[in-house]
Amino acid sequence: MKKRAMKTRAMRRREFVTGLGAGAVAAGVAGCAPQSGSVECDGAGSQERLNWKMVTTWPSNLPGLGTSATYLANKITALSGGRLTVKVYAAGELVPAFEIFDAVSQGTAELGHGAAYYWTGKSEAAQFFAAVPFGMNSAEMNGWLYYGGGLELWREVYAPFNLVPFPAGNTSVQTGGWFNREINTVEDLSGLKMRIPGLGGKVLRRAGGLPVSLPGGEIFTALQTGSIDATEWVGPANDLALGFHKAARYYYYPGWHEPGPTLECMVNKEAFEALPDDLQEIVATAAESTNNQMPADYMALNARALDDLVTEHNVELRQFPREVMDRMRELSKEAIDELVASDEMVARVYASYSDFLSKARRWSDISDYAYYVARDSG
Amino acid sequence: MKKRAMKTRAMRRREFVTGLGAGAVAAGVAGCAPQSGSVECDGAGSQERLNWKMVTTWPSNLPGLGTSATYLANKITALSGGRLTVKVYAAGELVPAFEIFDAVSQGTAELGHGAAYYWTGKSEAAQFFAAVPFGMNSAEMNGWLYYGGGLELWREVYAPFNLVPFPAGNTSVQTGGWFNREINTVEDLSGLKMRIPGLGGKVLRRAGGLPVSLPGGEIFTALQTGSIDATEWVGPANDLALGFHKAARYYYYPGWHEPGPTLECMVNKEAFEALPDDLQEIVATAAESTNNQMPADYMALNARALDDLVTEHNVELRQFPREVMDRMRELSKEAIDELVASDEMVARVYASYSDFLSKARRWSDISDYAYYVARDSG
Repeated sequence: MKKRAMKTRAMRRREFVTGLGAGAVAAGVAGCAPQSGSVECDGAGSQERLNWKMVTTWPSNLPGLGTSATYLANKITALSGGRLTVKVYAAGELVPAFEIFDAVSQGTAELGHGAAYYWTGKSEAAQFFAAVPFGMNSAEMNGWLYYGGGLELWREVYAPFNLVPFPAGNTSVQTGGWFNREINTVEDLSGLKMRIPGLGGKVLRRAGGLPVSLPGGEIFTALQTGSIDATEWVGPANDLALGFHKAARYYYYPGWHEPGPTLECMVNKEAFEALPDDLQEIVATAAESTNNQMPADYMALNARALDDLVTEHNVELRQFPREVMDRMRELSKEAIDELVASDEMVARVYASYSDFLSKARRWSDISDYAYYVARDSG
Repeated sequence: MKKRAMKTRAMRRREFVTGLGAGAVAAGVAGCAPQSGSVECDGAGSQERLNWKMVTTWPSNLPGLGTSATYLANKITALSGGRLTVKVYAAGELVPAFEIFDAVSQGTAELGHGAAYYWTGKSEAAQFFAAVPFGMNSAEMNGWLYYGGGLELWREVYAPFNLVPFPAGNTSVQTGGWFNREINTVEDLSGLKMRIPGLGGKVLRRAGGLPVSLPGGEIFTALQTGSIDATEWVGPANDLALGFHKAARYYYYPGWHEPGPTLECMVNKEAFEALPDDLQEIVATAAESTNNQMPADYMALNARALDDLVTEHNVELRQFPREVMDRMRELSKEAIDELVASDEMVARVYASYSDFLSKARRWSDISDYAYYVARDSG
């Protein structure tokens, strides 16, 4: 049945092409239709072969984040038997990292891989589909997005931008960051210059700190020269690669500000809708596979890197004191309440988010959390 | 490139068919090759259409487990545009639940969806690919299976049975079970008749309990009539559906015996290897998608069901006392050590499992676990 539906679509497109005039249908490429992305025909002339571009916010082959974007692209290519081939462009190769939203929106590229909290300048509601301080972890995010109405809201938020979003990865809980001073009380955050973007930065500011935005490549020097006192980044694997252990003494946990950031695959809406049913399913499923793969990759990468940091580099692991976490949790609530009061779409999205979380949390607490307690030999 | 490789394979199969004699190639079905599963041809005669059977260990449409098997089957059908159509058979429809391993091994069905700990009669090592008391949670299992050598070992364990395994779902941490007596000390387990299969049951026996094996459909009556004192099953959603809250007073957590059971998709090896590259990728990716989907489904299902159990049915939630968990953890180690000493493949698999877990646990403890502590307002 699916196959027949595809043929009908392909036929309809051929009719559309024919309507454009014979010039559009070159000899030997009958069956190829104009679409976003370049189009080739195979020898049989019955199946289009599409070439799509994927732009990303990641440096080339950044472990976990960048490699998962490549995984996603290769997955689409393999699942489609090459009918839809995706080429990945690292940040800056085709467009700068923070311009991929516009690039995919406008069709410069058909696909993008990034994180929704980068796009608060487009919509403040976007960040709730990535990470919220003291909010959902990765398991809860997946529950909300796939089975709690979250993805429908995400689609609604992105629709005016001509984009279709899919969850496509999760780093899982990040680390709290690298600090050149001890954090024993809330007062120790006062005047702290820390690289921490987004909502986490706003919370730090409420606690008296000075949040700074810096791209990954500039953090190490800033930390080493003392122009910042602290930085967060991702977790052991990515942090070790940037050498932060050589520039800061204490490694704090947990990453209260990013408890399970969902990564995104965004697709140009017109390009997506022009695909036959099975290629649409392939794009959606490749994103699901990436959502499954990235946390597993990070689990293995971080487990090994943490072992290196502790046993080879003698890094001092420190848990944020309860008093500090309690205060940051209160301040996070204040920061979110302010957003909710100022933006109608944020209010709608957060109503759904917090309703799901209130029930999911009770379940997480007696399952996942309680199991950690039971497994902990103290 | 992929497409061409497919054609070459299809051509090779055609040559094979021709070799069988003209009778095997009926008029109008040129291009269709004999394979496991029934084969049709579409009108164009250039693409085979395969029909596969999937047998499962689950009752029809059991929420979470059964519905995910259907999800997996439908995903394969949709991704392949109907070239590979999968029909699901619930437990007992084609073969009984615990005969699906043999059925897929022998090619009665091409696919099976179940859990590896059901097959200890075939290989004691199998259960380490599902769940181990006080072992890995779902995130750690995924890390080990996909990026820590676990899946390679699983393939090795299943290869002699003509099966190719894929992770295909996870219930996440289960609940500890329904009890008609309070469990305050290890002594309260003495003489306890509890429905708890597998390694968990062996651990209970070491603690003085009496583990019982009962299929799902018989548990309620056994609990209500007092022929058992306690039972474990899955978690709030599946437990609520079976009505255990009407037959037992206390609902204990966490499920120390099943901290993140991986479900499996097993494929008949010959059938899998006869597929063209893109259909192999489609089967593997549909399993990955299911591995992503099931825990999300359970998160939403369990969050809602737990809310119902607590607010509508006034169920008493109880956390197992630390003393009891400490003892069960020791006894679990003894039970595993005994298995390791008696079976060479178990020893190899457990060496890989425990090596991965020792590093992954340190990371889980300072990320996921520490985040629960930070989020907990006490």
